[in-house]
Amino acid sequence: MMKVVKIGGNVIDDDAALDSFIRDFSALEGEKILVHGGGRLATRLCEQLGIQTTMIDGRRVTDSETIDVVTMVYAGLINKRIVARLQAAGCNAIGLSGADAGVVKATRRAPQPVDFGFVGDIATEGVNADFLVGLTVQGVVPVICSIMHDGCGTLLNCNADSVASAVAVAAARKTETELLLCFEKRGVLSDVDNPDSVIEEICPENYRQLLADSVVSKGMIPKIDGAFAALERGVRRVIIKHSTELLADCGTKILK
Amino acid sequence: MMKVVKIGGNVIDDDAALDSFIRDFSALEGEKILVHGGGRLATRLCEQLGIQTTMIDGRRVTDSETIDVVTMVYAGLINKRIVARLQAAGCNAIGLSGADAGVVKATRRAPQPVDFGFVGDIATEGVNADFLVGLTVQGVVPVICSIMHDGCGTLLNCNADSVASAVAVAAARKTETELLLCFEKRGVLSDVDNPDSVIEEICPENYRQLLADSVVSKGMIPKIDGAFAALERGVRRVIIKHSTELLADCGTKILK
Repeated sequence: MMKVVKIGGNVIDDDAALDSFIRDFSALEGEKILVHGGGRLATRLCEQLGIQTTMIDGRRVTDSETIDVVTMVYAGLINKRIVARLQAAGCNAIGLSGADAGVVKATRRAPQPVDFGFVGDIATEGVNADFLVGLTVQGVVPVICSIMHDGCGTLLNCNADSVASAVAVAAARKTETELLLCFEKRGVLSDVDNPDSVIEEICPENYRQLLADSVVSKGMIPKIDGAFAALERGVRRVIIKHSTELLADCGTKILK
Repeated sequence: MMKVVKIGGNVIDDDAALDSFIRDFSALEGEKILVHGGGRLATRLCEQLGIQTTMIDGRRVTDSETIDVVTMVYAGLINKRIVARLQAAGCNAIGLSGADAGVVKATRRAPQPVDFGFVGDIATEGVNADFLVGLTVQGVVPVICSIMHDGCGTLLNCNADSVASAVAVAAARKTETELLLCFEKRGVLSDVDNPDSVIEEICPENYRQLLADSVVSKGMIPKIDGAFAALERGVRRVIIKHSTELLADCGTKILK
């Protein structure tokens, strides 16, 4: 089964966590694709360069200076660091932005009602699954950052969860695929104060109840909704788990 | 015939020149690989970040902060800008550092007599020509920056001319290959003050004479020596030409 694994800032910002994740990901058997987010490095570099961060509704506006910084950090430093370490661990990784071999095309978000700048949204149709799956069949492991292109020469910053989901859905059209969303918790928790209160399975039925009882935290809702959308579109399984537990059979399974 | 084309700072630092080069490179027929250098952006970013540049014998020392900056700029911003624009021009480019799919491995330069830091040298044996030529056969065009890896997780800054040469030599073992070194002059000049005084052909015989007469400028000697070395190792032709004249039959041909 093809595995599409997504990691975020909690791994990327912590060198020891990244090393440990890289060992685990290298050991993961079968065809696999890694999608990584950004972490705090880009924000720090913006600060150092005196680039003002504008937030609207809690979301960052990506102006032309900021897209340059995130391209440098995500597609350059973070992506190549991960690839070089995977190579050292015996995993034949290849780092890709969406522009590379046109693997993921995005559409710039409409400037109304709010202009978020160089931010894009991805359609499954924008994913070149033939090329990505073709690499994995050769034993080459795509490592995809969240910088995409519009096909007309412009780079766009995208949400890494959405990238992972679109890649998994597109891969699922070629081969059986599961999506592993790794983050800083052991899964979806029934009690935010208890890190071990992992809900083993979420299906549409108990999800409605969890929402009604306000058990699921607000931040988790888009992740779970995204997981259900991926399942509806052909992904076999979605698992939300801690990035240190990649190889263990644990976390929250999202089921159709 | 496979074409390995190298561009440097004069194209990368000039947006109009880059656009024009991208149109020409997209129009270049047959299998092709682009290798690009760095330009002034990394130096500027180092300045903005207060990273001191140390030069020894006219060469930059790449300390740990500097390798991060050049990785961001070369493998991130410049590489992805070029790739996105090539995609827009209908050329199915894929941006690669040496670490990606292990396409080019380098060896960190010995710290004696001078420690240049994270700087590497490339052997032809370090080039994964199977993968690179395999991409070009599929119609995918590798765009390679000068950031390589040592295979043990460390990124190394390399000379882009040397990268282009090593890639051309490795490709020549698979398929007939020519190397096009593009720069800011129309070729090797017999009179530095006359941009049109292009020497049409240089072979070992007239090269000895040109050197004896001090016709060839000091800066050109490593380029020409590198060209001869590539010819000795199987590259069919080397042409040194202006980056605006990629499609024209001009420049200085280096012949064995």
